[in-house]
Amino acid sequence: MATEKIPDIIIGRLPIYLRALQRLSDQGIQTTSSQDLGEIVGISAAQIRKDISQFGEFGKQGTGYSIPYLMEKLRSILKMDRVWDVIIVGMGDIGHALAHYNGFANRGFHVSMVFDNDPKKIGQTVGDFRVLDTASMIEKIKQHKIKVAVLTVPATAAQEATDLLVKAGVKAILNYAPISINVPEDVKVQYVDPVTHLQRMTYYL
Amino acid sequence: MATEKIPDIIIGRLPIYLRALQRLSDQGIQTTSSQDLGEIVGISAAQIRKDISQFGEFGKQGTGYSIPYLMEKLRSILKMDRVWDVIIVGMGDIGHALAHYNGFANRGFHVSMVFDNDPKKIGQTVGDFRVLDTASMIEKIKQHKIKVAVLTVPATAAQEATDLLVKAGVKAILNYAPISINVPEDVKVQYVDPVTHLQRMTYYL
Repeated sequence: MATEKIPDIIIGRLPIYLRALQRLSDQGIQTTSSQDLGEIVGISAAQIRKDISQFGEFGKQGTGYSIPYLMEKLRSILKMDRVWDVIIVGMGDIGHALAHYNGFANRGFHVSMVFDNDPKKIGQTVGDFRVLDTASMIEKIKQHKIKVAVLTVPATAAQEATDLLVKAGVKAILNYAPISINVPEDVKVQYVDPVTHLQRMTYYL
Repeated sequence: MATEKIPDIIIGRLPIYLRALQRLSDQGIQTTSSQDLGEIVGISAAQIRKDISQFGEFGKQGTGYSIPYLMEKLRSILKMDRVWDVIIVGMGDIGHALAHYNGFANRGFHVSMVFDNDPKKIGQTVGDFRVLDTASMIEKIKQHKIKVAVLTVPATAAQEATDLLVKAGVKAILNYAPISINVPEDVKVQYVDPVTHLQRMTYYL
């Protein structure tokens, strides 16, 4: 598998396929087709077949895809066959929501620590976590070899927090702050932006 | 413009382009190329040119795209040349965060009402809003002709709340609840799912 050359845009669709397959699997369904999958995710069957075929031959002509097999393969491609430790930086409303979120565990992620710089929040308990001081963040990230962080600080604090994360060795940042952050080339950033989702839907109204 | 036939997948990329153009515009930049845009959004220049050309000839060979002009066109295509009233259903942590979020107003959306079914929350103030009772939701949605809703209720309450929204005439739902919701064919749903974003990045680690 020449996975090195797979375009980013295809990689971005694989988690969407995986989520749809999980949904079918939860309903007790064992096989699916690119047509059925396409209807769930809103992507053409041809595109789905093309995307998946980049990684090998997973489906059979006429019988479709085995859901458990395809899920296993997609998980392996996306490196979900291990558990990634994640930290959450910023214990405001969204940080709180994510600290309580129970959807990480069975999908490859484990929240290991949460941070804030507000003396009123440091030491408090949020869900299963004690809020740690961002002053100790670099040290703790290095110690636990954390590579993935979720950034839920206000926009004004986002770049400063990002710089700390990068300095400590974090390579993937999921940014909820409503601002662009600058990172070196070897660090990946994804934005959680409600407005882009809304704009995508208003086109059809 | 035969916009009726534009694939969903292309429509989904336009808000991403629009956000990147806004970022450049905020920096005082007036023109850009598909190459520069591609570097910001992680999509190939060829794909960007192809996507944008679906809607007409917006760029000039050699001089690139005029950012204000392209933004105006994308806004028009995405029906962002008006303001959409949005309601938020569920005043937990995420509902709170979104009620305080200041990134809607200048990007085509206006939060007009927020709802919850918890007697302890109904009547309370969150940001600029008084929390309304979901028992009055259908009536209020119809009265104000609301078409767009953000769903931030717990997973267990998501389908019930969805059914109310659909019954009241909502046609676009942004779902933060970590569960799939069922809607009729003429209703669009988008999921805000932190795990798909994380999975997209771990591929590169």
